[in-house]
Amino acid sequence: MSRSTRTREGGRRDEIVAQAVALFDAKGYAGTSVNDIADALGLSKPALYHYIQRKEDVLYWIHEEFAQMLIAKLEDRLTEPRPMRDQLRDVVRDILALMVTHRVYLRVFFEHFRELDPERQAEIALQRDHYRHLVQGVIERGSASGEFRALDPGIVTNSIFGMCNWAYQWYDPAGALSNVEVADTMFDLLLGGLETRA
Amino acid sequence: MSRSTRTREGGRRDEIVAQAVALFDAKGYAGTSVNDIADALGLSKPALYHYIQRKEDVLYWIHEEFAQMLIAKLEDRLTEPRPMRDQLRDVVRDILALMVTHRVYLRVFFEHFRELDPERQAEIALQRDHYRHLVQGVIERGSASGEFRALDPGIVTNSIFGMCNWAYQWYDPAGALSNVEVADTMFDLLLGGLETRA
Repeated sequence: MSRSTRTREGGRRDEIVAQAVALFDAKGYAGTSVNDIADALGLSKPALYHYIQRKEDVLYWIHEEFAQMLIAKLEDRLTEPRPMRDQLRDVVRDILALMVTHRVYLRVFFEHFRELDPERQAEIALQRDHYRHLVQGVIERGSASGEFRALDPGIVTNSIFGMCNWAYQWYDPAGALSNVEVADTMFDLLLGGLETRA
Repeated sequence: MSRSTRTREGGRRDEIVAQAVALFDAKGYAGTSVNDIADALGLSKPALYHYIQRKEDVLYWIHEEFAQMLIAKLEDRLTEPRPMRDQLRDVVRDILALMVTHRVYLRVFFEHFRELDPERQAEIALQRDHYRHLVQGVIERGSASGEFRALDPGIVTNSIFGMCNWAYQWYDPAGALSNVEVADTMFDLLLGGLETRA
């Protein structure tokens, strides 16, 4: 496939995903059919079937979109010689930025992940593992250099993802705090801890 | 209703919830009908309808069960004159204990909460707010006494819930780490921070 074809297909795919996500948000995932998605796009069912066969395909694309974005940003920054604390601050900021740009995407994905077929779940697990591995690498390199304490790096990584990902449940982009303010308070807590020092 | 009647009804309700959760786990929430639940319990549909009208009722009971348990435990301990760090350690342990006793319950609840009708969602929000208020009170009292740093208490509370709740996504009770070990590492990270001190 030529680059221009891929871009054209990618553009159409983004449009389908955006429309599908809007429907999932308004009517619920269970209450939205492939027909509804075709109607909203003004496409015939056969035309839409060129892109998606099942509603679950959209879940996969949603995940792929934000996973590839997070991975690309982090891999890019990891080529720079920066302290691991700075790398970690940017990871927290990247994830909190999704709460503005991809809020409904995240909710739909987290709540319906288990409805994907096992092959698709396995492909997604590979992407998640890749990102997880990169973030855990930041923790491990920071511990090795003495920047960070030597806590179980797997639990630390999962704790960071929990802290950040859970924001899809409570963070309101229209509220008083910007996503960067939330990210930086989380990072302060994470790095400095809650306890006062003498 | 007399206490013995309530207890009898409560026992039957626990049985219905346990059976329904097992079906949700095996066949998915969407794939389980009230009929399936009646069949699994060996009950006629009218007999089951005495207890539940819709599948969503089970979601409400699931939430009520673990919310009331968390609230009761914390309220009980808050009557004791203990440092806030000890109160907080026990909150983290309580939530991580749910990953063993209520793992599938938590997943079903988190993934299908939005399918409840607005009245039920509002009742659940009251319970969650109550627990949240108690935990945020621990953070605020700790900050006021100088035990904890003065970070935004709302973000800190949500970060703690995120860190702990997210474990339903990754913690495997059959794995190498006990729920108490995971809880105590999370608490160490939370209290002491990731960064090494001079």
